[in-house]
Amino acid sequence: MQGTVLYAPRDVRFEQRDDPKIIEPADAIVRLSATCVCGSDLWYYRGISPVTQPSPMGHEYCGIVEEVGSDVGSIRPGQFVIGSFFASDNTCPHCQAGFHSSCQHREPILGAQAEWLRVPLADGTLVATPDRPDDDLIPSLLTLSDVMGTGWFAAVAARVQPGMTVAVVGDGAVGLLGVLSASRMGAARIIAMSRHEPRQKLAREFGATDIVTERGEAGVAAIKDITAGIGADATLECVGTAESMVQALRSTRPGGFVGFVGVPHGVNLDGEKLFSSHVGLLGGPAPVRRFLPELIELVCNGEINPGKVFDLTLPLHEVAEGYRAMDERRAIKSLLHP
Amino acid sequence: MQGTVLYAPRDVRFEQRDDPKIIEPADAIVRLSATCVCGSDLWYYRGISPVTQPSPMGHEYCGIVEEVGSDVGSIRPGQFVIGSFFASDNTCPHCQAGFHSSCQHREPILGAQAEWLRVPLADGTLVATPDRPDDDLIPSLLTLSDVMGTGWFAAVAARVQPGMTVAVVGDGAVGLLGVLSASRMGAARIIAMSRHEPRQKLAREFGATDIVTERGEAGVAAIKDITAGIGADATLECVGTAESMVQALRSTRPGGFVGFVGVPHGVNLDGEKLFSSHVGLLGGPAPVRRFLPELIELVCNGEINPGKVFDLTLPLHEVAEGYRAMDERRAIKSLLHP
Repeated sequence: MQGTVLYAPRDVRFEQRDDPKIIEPADAIVRLSATCVCGSDLWYYRGISPVTQPSPMGHEYCGIVEEVGSDVGSIRPGQFVIGSFFASDNTCPHCQAGFHSSCQHREPILGAQAEWLRVPLADGTLVATPDRPDDDLIPSLLTLSDVMGTGWFAAVAARVQPGMTVAVVGDGAVGLLGVLSASRMGAARIIAMSRHEPRQKLAREFGATDIVTERGEAGVAAIKDITAGIGADATLECVGTAESMVQALRSTRPGGFVGFVGVPHGVNLDGEKLFSSHVGLLGGPAPVRRFLPELIELVCNGEINPGKVFDLTLPLHEVAEGYRAMDERRAIKSLLHP
Repeated sequence: MQGTVLYAPRDVRFEQRDDPKIIEPADAIVRLSATCVCGSDLWYYRGISPVTQPSPMGHEYCGIVEEVGSDVGSIRPGQFVIGSFFASDNTCPHCQAGFHSSCQHREPILGAQAEWLRVPLADGTLVATPDRPDDDLIPSLLTLSDVMGTGWFAAVAARVQPGMTVAVVGDGAVGLLGVLSASRMGAARIIAMSRHEPRQKLAREFGATDIVTERGEAGVAAIKDITAGIGADATLECVGTAESMVQALRSTRPGGFVGFVGVPHGVNLDGEKLFSSHVGLLGGPAPVRRFLPELIELVCNGEINPGKVFDLTLPLHEVAEGYRAMDERRAIKSLLHP
């Protein structure tokens, strides 16, 4: 088959790779209906995270089950499935507690920017849709594999409740879907921090009531202004830099929570400041698997349309352009069709 | 009156001071029935936190209202009252959210190791007992002013629920009362980290089911052993050093929370480690005022006896010995009688 391999920063190649095979009896092979480029792929693409060897890329996927191993019971060939970027058994104590991305047997998904994908722990990892979905639902279903589940987790971790004022730091796909999640959870006021007009527009479509373009001190001041000096009840940190984390913490009221889902790069938290702020923190790689059944239902019923974050659709073999467009911020998120 | 002033590290003086007077119309003057030395006073006593000028010491208090200002409505002379170490109005948005120690009008209480105390914002700060309490209840009521409320907040912040396994880092008065709090909240298993036999004994009296004497890697391993490799469901951090915070974070399962109430000294949190751990964090100066009505009831009904943490009782004029005994770990906590 053909698949995507990153050889070095900015060196994305679409090339011949071995067809995936069942290796473990819990595996499934999925023929991908769609895949995409993640904001977290850009850390490697840009050389901020090291690329030490040619790396198969992609961890977001949905498609048709082609084959399953001998231990797979609940997933069957022919089903349309979605899974998380971490395979998980869905039975260990961490999965039972809803933190599937800390599963005791977790395995990262690699190489999903391809035609086929081997998914370990298929029964625990994959969730099937009730029926074979219409093509127009596929972009939204694809987002459930990572970015929508991640935005949703940010809102859950920040304890968003009906009537709250929620701030969202970051206007990438995750931040925008954090806005959608907060809106869906009944937030009364949603402040999107964004400087980019097309992203502001989508944030408003997803439910943002206010846009803050300032950053740093001025950004905090703007949020304090909007909230009568109190701060946001809940804040979603969807970037992962030291600046964005400070922005999130300082924008939140005492007793409020920051849900942080941007993979931290160079983030150090001052214990004394955190203590005196009374702001709570919960984050990490989103346990997307926990939310799949609920979010699949919302998508299939047409209640949410997170697929709107894809503003560039390419054939899979043009994957390198998908990276470039996101790197240059010409695209929010690139969908790839095998 | 006579009161306690810290002039320099280890230089505690009990000396003549001005009698406190009503300054603001919201003030009350309280004749103290008992006061005590706090673990946080030791940071200054030991010179770890700087002493830049002679400082009136003490922030834990209970006693009889002697006089109130013209704006005070709910508190009356003759009542027995307890208040937090921060005065708070109990009406601002932060108080309404239960975070009184971040009150928009908060004022620190200073100089409570004395005969009399001026308490600002008396209506918001002080809570009266239903009746004048018996003398034997006074030590327990005094703990509600800080250490018991702080241990309770640690357990609330760590989201302790019935049936949970809870780890407590720190065997000072706050840690021990964290054990009592977790027990009262229905924790099934409470692991106290302590190397000191008398403190281990009190921890067991308060409900600890397991004692871990190891620290660092070995301490984490011991907690993982006790919890079948999973980690504690909730952890109470009651020290405030970099080591104790790492200990707490690493002892907690993914999705579990650390409630941190030890005032941080030199604590820096690595964002990437926090992210990958899936451990949540909430802490800060305990909003003791939130818990006063509930805890007063528990003490007055004889359901909890947190006053057991006082293992040294001195006349107030011997306050310097109270500091020395705690500094040398001869005493867990020193009660002072004016």
